[in-house]
Amino acid sequence: MQENLKYDNPKNIRKSISELKVLGPTSSYAYGYIQTNLVILDKNVAFDFLSYSMLNPSPCPILEVLEPGNPFPVKSASNSDIRYDLGKYLIFQNKNSKIVENIENYWTKSKVTFLIGCLFSMQKHFEDAGIIIKHLNENKIDPTFITNIPTKPFGIFDGPMVVSMWPVHKDYITKAITISSKLPSVHGKPIHIGDPKLIGIKDIEKPDYGDIIKLKPDEIPVFWGCGITPQLIAQQKNIDMITHHPGNMYVTDLKTSEMEIL
Amino acid sequence: MQENLKYDNPKNIRKSISELKVLGPTSSYAYGYIQTNLVILDKNVAFDFLSYSMLNPSPCPILEVLEPGNPFPVKSASNSDIRYDLGKYLIFQNKNSKIVENIENYWTKSKVTFLIGCLFSMQKHFEDAGIIIKHLNENKIDPTFITNIPTKPFGIFDGPMVVSMWPVHKDYITKAITISSKLPSVHGKPIHIGDPKLIGIKDIEKPDYGDIIKLKPDEIPVFWGCGITPQLIAQQKNIDMITHHPGNMYVTDLKTSEMEIL
Repeated sequence: MQENLKYDNPKNIRKSISELKVLGPTSSYAYGYIQTNLVILDKNVAFDFLSYSMLNPSPCPILEVLEPGNPFPVKSASNSDIRYDLGKYLIFQNKNSKIVENIENYWTKSKVTFLIGCLFSMQKHFEDAGIIIKHLNENKIDPTFITNIPTKPFGIFDGPMVVSMWPVHKDYITKAITISSKLPSVHGKPIHIGDPKLIGIKDIEKPDYGDIIKLKPDEIPVFWGCGITPQLIAQQKNIDMITHHPGNMYVTDLKTSEMEIL
Repeated sequence: MQENLKYDNPKNIRKSISELKVLGPTSSYAYGYIQTNLVILDKNVAFDFLSYSMLNPSPCPILEVLEPGNPFPVKSASNSDIRYDLGKYLIFQNKNSKIVENIENYWTKSKVTFLIGCLFSMQKHFEDAGIIIKHLNENKIDPTFITNIPTKPFGIFDGPMVVSMWPVHKDYITKAITISSKLPSVHGKPIHIGDPKLIGIKDIEKPDYGDIIKLKPDEIPVFWGCGITPQLIAQQKNIDMITHHPGNMYVTDLKTSEMEIL
């Protein structure tokens, strides 16, 4: 883990990322700050996607929506350009996908940017409460799975929910629920706790994205909605989308503690 | 107050309203159930309005969005048709406004319906906690005011926030805040408590909409965001909109207690 980036401020981290001095994954960066998933769509499907996200706040908690053609976040960060400030982007276009380091050449006036909360934002809260973040300790990306839980459809957006799994020691389950319930803007409470088969995950050691994290006998798998859900829909429905490469999130200036409800 | 309607179920009330057996205001109807504001717009401004609402959850907490051309709520009620199930509607069209009893003749395939939480939904919670709902006791509609608080603009939507004022006895202010904070889907916590001048209200006995409620010396005015805010924008910006007539809300099947967070 890069300790200097863990405690560095978001502005510096975004600058280093935009200059390609560091890339991702960002899970160990900017502890205590909100990180987000990125979804960029053409404005002709923006209403459908925003309505879809509101129906599915667990995988798609919307933190900010930018006006068509505007690449500069207003609420989430200042002096930031969404076209350069992520380490790696995924382009879904004409049924193909491609990884790029900036999206300058894909930007148009009709692009609408959605910033969607990411679970990484909770890591400091978890650590402060004594909960071990196992994938960080193992220098891995957390495993994510395609479930059999259908999301609620709206317009062209429809598909199964993707979830992240973090193993939590049995004595800390209640704390993990309490902390995450207060943070709906970064996925909120777990969508499932315990037996992976109940949500259609056949083998917990075969994630669809991210790394394998093995569970110890005293650890319970805890599942949260994941912002990869829209990427899966884009692939399944052939919707042109620009998004972050899994694990390479957008680091905002917002403090996680400021986003707590009640 | 019509006690039979206060404790009747939402389905019966919607049926009576659609058959014009009762009209509004609905504040004394269906205690303990969610009531909503209604905003219907053409789909070409639907994305702007939804984004605007998400930026301004205090006056515009979105409870449900229907797909273009669909007048049948999915989440909020079953067997309901938004074109008939409100007592009185306001039509803003071609810079004119008109009051109608159903919107059959104004419905098209491009109409998008937004249901926005209403403060009336909290009344049972307040009464159960011993808070007197003064406008109900006086058989009045609660007073609402145009403030000097700007809402956050998105696209063509921009304007000052409209607020509702309920007088609360000084000993119950904390309870009123606690209860309403747990209900963000029906306006959530107050936007202001105390001196009306601080939010640009010159005379608390001259509301812009609703009835006059006089304050006693031991009562504090408490202000919540109000769903009339989009109506004011429609008028100021000449945006065609179909909406409820103030006080004549949409009565849903959702229980307020089910919408509590934490």
